[in-house]
Amino acid sequence: METRTAPADPEVLTSNLRVALDGRFGPIRDAAREYLNRADLLPDPALTLEEARARSLRIMRDLVPHGLPHAGFRKEHGGTGDVGAAIVGIEMLGYADLSLMVKAGVQWGLFGGAIENLGTAAHHEQYVVPLINLDVLGCFGMTETGHGSNVQALQTIATYDSQTGDFVLNSVGSLARKDYIGGAAEHATVAAVFAQLVTGGPGEEATGRGVHCFVVPIRSADGKDLPGITTSDCGHKGGLAGVDNGRIVFDNVRVPRANLLNRYADVAQDGSYSSPIENENKRFFTMLGTLIRGRVSVAATSGAAARKALTIASRYALVRKQFDTPDSDDEVIIADYLVHQRKLLPLIARSYALAFAQNELTEELHEVQTADEVDADRQRQLESAAAGLKAMTSWHAQHAITVCREACGGAGYLDANQLTILRRDIDVFTTFEGDNTVLTQLVAKELLSAYAEDVRGLNAVGWTRFIAGMARDVILERSAARQVIQTILDSSDEDVEESDLSNRGTQLRLLRNREDHLLRTAATRMQRAQSDDEDPFEVFNSAQDHILKVGSAHTERVVLEAFIEAIDSCDSKSAQELLEKLCDLFVYSALEADLSWFLMHRHVSTERAKAIRRGVNQLCEELRPHLRTLVDAFGIPEALLATEMIPDN
Amino acid sequence: METRTAPADPEVLTSNLRVALDGRFGPIRDAAREYLNRADLLPDPALTLEEARARSLRIMRDLVPHGLPHAGFRKEHGGTGDVGAAIVGIEMLGYADLSLMVKAGVQWGLFGGAIENLGTAAHHEQYVVPLINLDVLGCFGMTETGHGSNVQALQTIATYDSQTGDFVLNSVGSLARKDYIGGAAEHATVAAVFAQLVTGGPGEEATGRGVHCFVVPIRSADGKDLPGITTSDCGHKGGLAGVDNGRIVFDNVRVPRANLLNRYADVAQDGSYSSPIENENKRFFTMLGTLIRGRVSVAATSGAAARKALTIASRYALVRKQFDTPDSDDEVIIADYLVHQRKLLPLIARSYALAFAQNELTEELHEVQTADEVDADRQRQLESAAAGLKAMTSWHAQHAITVCREACGGAGYLDANQLTILRRDIDVFTTFEGDNTVLTQLVAKELLSAYAEDVRGLNAVGWTRFIAGMARDVILERSAARQVIQTILDSSDEDVEESDLSNRGTQLRLLRNREDHLLRTAATRMQRAQSDDEDPFEVFNSAQDHILKVGSAHTERVVLEAFIEAIDSCDSKSAQELLEKLCDLFVYSALEADLSWFLMHRHVSTERAKAIRRGVNQLCEELRPHLRTLVDAFGIPEALLATEMIPDN
Repeated sequence: METRTAPADPEVLTSNLRVALDGRFGPIRDAAREYLNRADLLPDPALTLEEARARSLRIMRDLVPHGLPHAGFRKEHGGTGDVGAAIVGIEMLGYADLSLMVKAGVQWGLFGGAIENLGTAAHHEQYVVPLINLDVLGCFGMTETGHGSNVQALQTIATYDSQTGDFVLNSVGSLARKDYIGGAAEHATVAAVFAQLVTGGPGEEATGRGVHCFVVPIRSADGKDLPGITTSDCGHKGGLAGVDNGRIVFDNVRVPRANLLNRYADVAQDGSYSSPIENENKRFFTMLGTLIRGRVSVAATSGAAARKALTIASRYALVRKQFDTPDSDDEVIIADYLVHQRKLLPLIARSYALAFAQNELTEELHEVQTADEVDADRQRQLESAAAGLKAMTSWHAQHAITVCREACGGAGYLDANQLTILRRDIDVFTTFEGDNTVLTQLVAKELLSAYAEDVRGLNAVGWTRFIAGMARDVILERSAARQVIQTILDSSDEDVEESDLSNRGTQLRLLRNREDHLLRTAATRMQRAQSDDEDPFEVFNSAQDHILKVGSAHTERVVLEAFIEAIDSCDSKSAQELLEKLCDLFVYSALEADLSWFLMHRHVSTERAKAIRRGVNQLCEELRPHLRTLVDAFGIPEALLATEMIPDN
Repeated sequence: METRTAPADPEVLTSNLRVALDGRFGPIRDAAREYLNRADLLPDPALTLEEARARSLRIMRDLVPHGLPHAGFRKEHGGTGDVGAAIVGIEMLGYADLSLMVKAGVQWGLFGGAIENLGTAAHHEQYVVPLINLDVLGCFGMTETGHGSNVQALQTIATYDSQTGDFVLNSVGSLARKDYIGGAAEHATVAAVFAQLVTGGPGEEATGRGVHCFVVPIRSADGKDLPGITTSDCGHKGGLAGVDNGRIVFDNVRVPRANLLNRYADVAQDGSYSSPIENENKRFFTMLGTLIRGRVSVAATSGAAARKALTIASRYALVRKQFDTPDSDDEVIIADYLVHQRKLLPLIARSYALAFAQNELTEELHEVQTADEVDADRQRQLESAAAGLKAMTSWHAQHAITVCREACGGAGYLDANQLTILRRDIDVFTTFEGDNTVLTQLVAKELLSAYAEDVRGLNAVGWTRFIAGMARDVILERSAARQVIQTILDSSDEDVEESDLSNRGTQLRLLRNREDHLLRTAATRMQRAQSDDEDPFEVFNSAQDHILKVGSAHTERVVLEAFIEAIDSCDSKSAQELLEKLCDLFVYSALEADLSWFLMHRHVSTERAKAIRRGVNQLCEELRPHLRTLVDAFGIPEALLATEMIPDN
């Protein structure tokens, strides 16, 4: 067996890789590394629900002085106005405790974000500083038992009463209760409540104006439900013990007119409704769009959770031995088995890829949200990118943590070694901030409709009819590739079959061609709905798996481009070389995972398919000596990696 | 949209499907359904560890009068000698609480099994009845921190002291501590301890005789560690809160000579060692082979857990609605979305397949273990079949429960709805009773070595050299197919490409040809190790992914054959028709999951590959009206399916 030699200076290499991974957020990450390097931040599975919840809140109070919450709010409201730093701060919390991340995300990201983005001056003045400082604890009352993905169909009603100048909130039917709301079980005293607004001006019939957001006090300072409010506790969950998820039911709850978060729509004293955005659908999606940070944070934190699990499992793989080595008394280090390498290394490569894509997404969010003017197109693209990456990264994390747990055997199953806690806590990341299947479909729908304005909010039938009526070339129009990608494409052979698979241009073309092919054929299938003989719902439904694949293929292509961009930006030659190899492994294993598609559509020959499988093995072997370096470069604070896997001898 | 019509009489159909699923164990399952139909058997996530553990033990005491434990022991020892019933009883516990199943499995299956199968008359007399009645609580001290898969290398040493007639047990080094041992943290007072026996007769040097099992008291009645014993608690785990896993360290612990479980080897007063099985390796594997029940139970229970999750998720899919239906005020039932069908139905089909295969495995275990004489070949095949099915079913369960949780969205994340508890508890089923990767590899190694006696216990190098030296036709020799399979093969076209994919013979040939191809090519790769230029470890390691695939392809083929056999044995025409369709979906989705292999090796054309994908969609649509029937037929006691998913209106 070949002797493994470590690279010349793994410490320098680690540090250079870390610079690449940190991207533009290096200083923010380093600061977070410093204040998060405390083992007492790790979740404690021995706590009762009540204790775990109290603990999250206590740690949040500790974090306030570090400026973590301030970054997410504009200077004029009492924050520091660094959106990127806010996301990265939340992401870094994921290395410590996902309950903490979620509870912080609910308070500062969702509740705070609703106040900041949907409210106006009076709301900002009343709430922003107190909510930053945790003098006001809020929750985000959007999801209902009966409606999660279909927010436009919420069944909480807010009817304006011009006699008293109040909104009257009611939960209509048992499916209308607000459900799974973080903070609603115990700590929150105020809720940002999404409800159907019903109002009419003088002489006008009161009519539904669509979903709007209201600030609604729900509890007194001593924790009692206010009149008309009934909260209850979701109790024990799959994980996230430190988050007090609960339900809220409204029975004729009155709040003053001023409690409408009225940035995008207002109700006058006399009940007249006004909005700068005339189209109800557009207004709804504009409001929702301002809340995009939650989704971006969930994507970012999922990536962090996967990296932590991979670090723990890789360290274990490097010390755990099993079955004897030939010609020696010792046993084989499990990281030396091909099958073990195949478990961990492709996931590590993918974690790098997703981290680079996440940095780009966070940067883009920062740009869009700190710009003087809203760029509607960029906002739309951002939302789609966030949806795609959130789905891809949270699925990746769920899978990676499962694999890591198993790769650590019995030791992996002990909470003391953290992987089980990570697995429990991450599970719902595939659901909240948008069900992953629905989000992936959303990416595809946006691509297929070429981001057409009028398509949002259409049901399956309406959407299918819309696509059926579109010109094909509209669907396939694509924005220009960024410079580095264009250069690679220009210098590579267009004939993919003829060109080397290890060539980055070939790899790019494979992923781009897959996306184009899927998009084109999905459009063709939708166009059947033009015919009167076809039921548009059936046309949509029978192609639904195809449509989903459009979404994931698109996101994977974008992720590869982010990886390539990150390699291009890397200053260190040795780090760059390692990243190139890692990028190869990302591509080869992505191709391998979808090989049947590439073969079926003749984008890859059977000979090439075999070369891809061999390539994954070969790259695993080449990257094996760097395993420790690769995970150390994630830069997870050492105190947060505490395990009891291997006892001291 | 087409109106879904329910089949003529779903109740009769359900009942007939249940008869098919229950197989030969119908009456035992029905009895268990009756005494398990109590919601108070469900795990309670609010309990502390200590409470949860005490509760499992209390429920076990309730179960004793139902005769559950008695089935696993021979009549002459105080049991009822129905091995099949013992396994099915344990499997059914999985519908209630996996902690209960594991704790019962440790006491009656592992500890009891060691006493029953490795002990002799004195041990049977002393322990069997008390352990059935829970007057003696035992644990199974095999795994150590440093050795799980490689049991032959355990580092607990039992040295015989002929002066005193004692064995002296020591944990040699920190990796030698017994770890993850169910019962060791709290309840067990006695352990069946696996240790390296060191002894020598008069004038003979004391030498290692390999791993043997000893009965070792570890705790006093009041729960204190006995002298020389140090137990500790594994604490909180990923799940299985009701099982008190712990560690045991031995420091000069003395037990009398009689405490060696001496069915397969004995030590005389003077230290002389004797065994009816001369070969140490053979002796080790014979002893281990008698303990096969644990693995069979874990496979069986994994199947039960998957079925329960699929039942809960399917019921939810049939009431939950989201996004509006065209031309109606109502919303679409999520079970009507193709992508949702694709999540649940192929897993249901696979659950049927695995249930049929499990029935065969349990039956075979019963036959082998209740026969008058040991049939070594059958025992060997049984062990391989158990390894393969345990790995396949526990991975299936882990995956299916994850999908089900996600398919129920936020509701799925609440412990009240059980899926999260199932997911936490099932996680380690892929690890205990044999790591799934190691087990799958074991299946392949047995096939590749044609079950040769001398191959067991060889390390990678030794094994590779052995295979390299074998004749190819030995490897490919296969036992005759059973009657129903042979008939199907005889009446189907040998040319797979030319024959209809919906033909069962074609389907069988596809899975058989895959297995043969993998086996043949794996053998060819191993034969490279004949050359002096090749490092046998490298030859083995570079083919490890290929070898694993041999194992899973083999098991999947066996599972299909069990499905076919079950259809053939089904008396009801309408149930048979539905099973045929379900079997198609099992095959189509199995082919789809491995489509790249079939394409790459030209066992399937690109056109056929596309037909397979379309076929899965088509079968999902055809089976959709039967969704409720299909899961109801699992026959899970209604009280154990309690959820709070949809509130009353």
